[in-house]
Amino acid sequence: MAAAYIHPTALVETPDIGAGTRIWAHVHIMAGAVVGPDCNVCDAAFIESGVRIGRGVTVKTGVSICEGITIEDGAFIGPDAVFTNDLRPRSPRLPFMREKYATKRWLEPTRVGRGASIGANATIGPGLVIGEWAMVAAGAVVVRRVAPHVLVVGNPARSIGHVCACAQRLTLDQGRAVCAGCHRAYVVNGGAVTPVHPIETWPDAVP
Amino acid sequence: MAAAYIHPTALVETPDIGAGTRIWAHVHIMAGAVVGPDCNVCDAAFIESGVRIGRGVTVKTGVSICEGITIEDGAFIGPDAVFTNDLRPRSPRLPFMREKYATKRWLEPTRVGRGASIGANATIGPGLVIGEWAMVAAGAVVVRRVAPHVLVVGNPARSIGHVCACAQRLTLDQGRAVCAGCHRAYVVNGGAVTPVHPIETWPDAVP
Amino acid sequence: MAAAYIHPTALVETPDIGAGTRIWAHVHIMAGAVVGPDCNVCDAAFIESGVRIGRGVTVKTGVSICEGITIEDGAFIGPDAVFTNDLRPRSPRLPFMREKYATKRWLEPTRVGRGASIGANATIGPGLVIGEWAMVAAGAVVVRRVAPHVLVVGNPARSIGHVCACAQRLTLDQGRAVCAGCHRAYVVNGGAVTPVHPIETWPDAVP
Repeated sequence: MAAAYIHPTALVETPDIGAGTRIWAHVHIMAGAVVGPDCNVCDAAFIESGVRIGRGVTVKTGVSICEGITIEDGAFIGPDAVFTNDLRPRSPRLPFMREKYATKRWLEPTRVGRGASIGANATIGPGLVIGEWAMVAAGAVVVRRVAPHVLVVGNPARSIGHVCACAQRLTLDQGRAVCAGCHRAYVVNGGAVTPVHPIETWPDAVP
Repeated sequence: MAAAYIHPTALVETPDIGAGTRIWAHVHIMAGAVVGPDCNVCDAAFIESGVRIGRGVTVKTGVSICEGITIEDGAFIGPDAVFTNDLRPRSPRLPFMREKYATKRWLEPTRVGRGASIGANATIGPGLVIGEWAMVAAGAVVVRRVAPHVLVVGNPARSIGHVCACAQRLTLDQGRAVCAGCHRAYVVNGGAVTPVHPIETWPDAVP
Repeated sequence: MAAAYIHPTALVETPDIGAGTRIWAHVHIMAGAVVGPDCNVCDAAFIESGVRIGRGVTVKTGVSICEGITIEDGAFIGPDAVFTNDLRPRSPRLPFMREKYATKRWLEPTRVGRGASIGANATIGPGLVIGEWAMVAAGAVVVRRVAPHVLVVGNPARSIGHVCACAQRLTLDQGRAVCAGCHRAYVVNGGAVTPVHPIETWPDAVP
């Protein structure tokens, strides 16, 4: 696999950029962030210290990813999506807020599961998990955990259905679902959607 | 008309920038995009390959315009507005998604009609038409076609009224409306608002 | 206090940057803007001419602050928050809109009160006041005035409660409230929440 490509206008302050990853104009990746192999980090994305991004992740233009966020393999982060890590922010420069911000105990981490999609301009609240292969619609404001394969929309975001790993909508029927597009099968138990066969991302474990 | 102005920090990779257009700091316009004359493209806007922008369009700071978007003459795109072109995005780096992304059949184009306004931080879903002189409120998430002269707000965006070409609200009355501001007249037929006299943008056809 | 720090990639066109303020990568602050001391202006923030920002304000990544906005001491502006100043925007390049945009009478200023917090990706409508120590939730779209210490969420934003200067939720009880976190006391009168003792930001008036 080729070395990473870094656009001349990008600021990349971490050595931890995986092979084959492309980093485009005006991106800023801070020291201490980790970006896996074969990712695509588009224009003006900002990735703060402490962020961990897996393999084959697509980060579109203008995305803001703050400390405490982990993005697993194969996820899609749409343009201008924004993450957060502080439920009750105040300016850390206020003298009486210094004690809170002197340590990182205020920080509430969020994890975006394998293969999940975050829509354009979505807002992801702090301290959440976006399940594997879930889909957050464009413009949604997520304030609660999203289960795997669930599709959420709106402000606040609420579930309106389920999606396959290939992103097609699933029709649940008596405890099971088969994707009309790719024919992957799922079992449904109490609202939880689980693939019958594990969903393979990269057949080779080693990039 | 003067030549285009391009700020020294802007990346402009297309030769198709019209006369009199101003392009400000940290803007990136990719090869294959077309921007008409007399436009104003503000800080950090991103315009992808394949985008077509007409005459006299204002693109405010931080706007993200992806492939497949056409913006007609005289439109206003507010700060941080975001466009989309894929209803069911997954990371194109996922091996099983390669077939989908190998061609552009997934791409759903959107058109913003002449003179329309897209509010700040609005999100425009894929495959839509925003009608001429329509107005999308700040923060709206548009998931359906917007008819000409219609004002939409909210997430999902819904119609709450009509606006004149000059942007004033219209009061519909028994099949007609006259703008209290500029006195343009409209006929109303089944919810469709049509100007009695064509709305002239630039009197001269040739810039 | 130390002089301001300005990242080499930032464009700072105003001399009015206070001591101790830090300005990070790809920020653009235009001529005629005023930024007070001890602020933190994060990556790619855009601050237009005429903006006034007080002391100890935190402006996170990607924030867009247009002319007419005043941000008082100790406020927090979350990532990708967007301000507006025109309720009925059209492209100023349209010939028949030139009269409107020839003066600044269209401009509706907004003020963010001392210590208030604006959440990530929030949208602030024009001509508003966000009261002191108020909190606008992430993703909220604010279209009405927000009273001091009020917490608003959603699109359109609506009040769901009250917060202390330290950002903890307040429980109102028979005309008073005491913060369970910091023990500041408030009196409640017809929905208005007022601190019993003035909330001190910086004990020294002179930086």
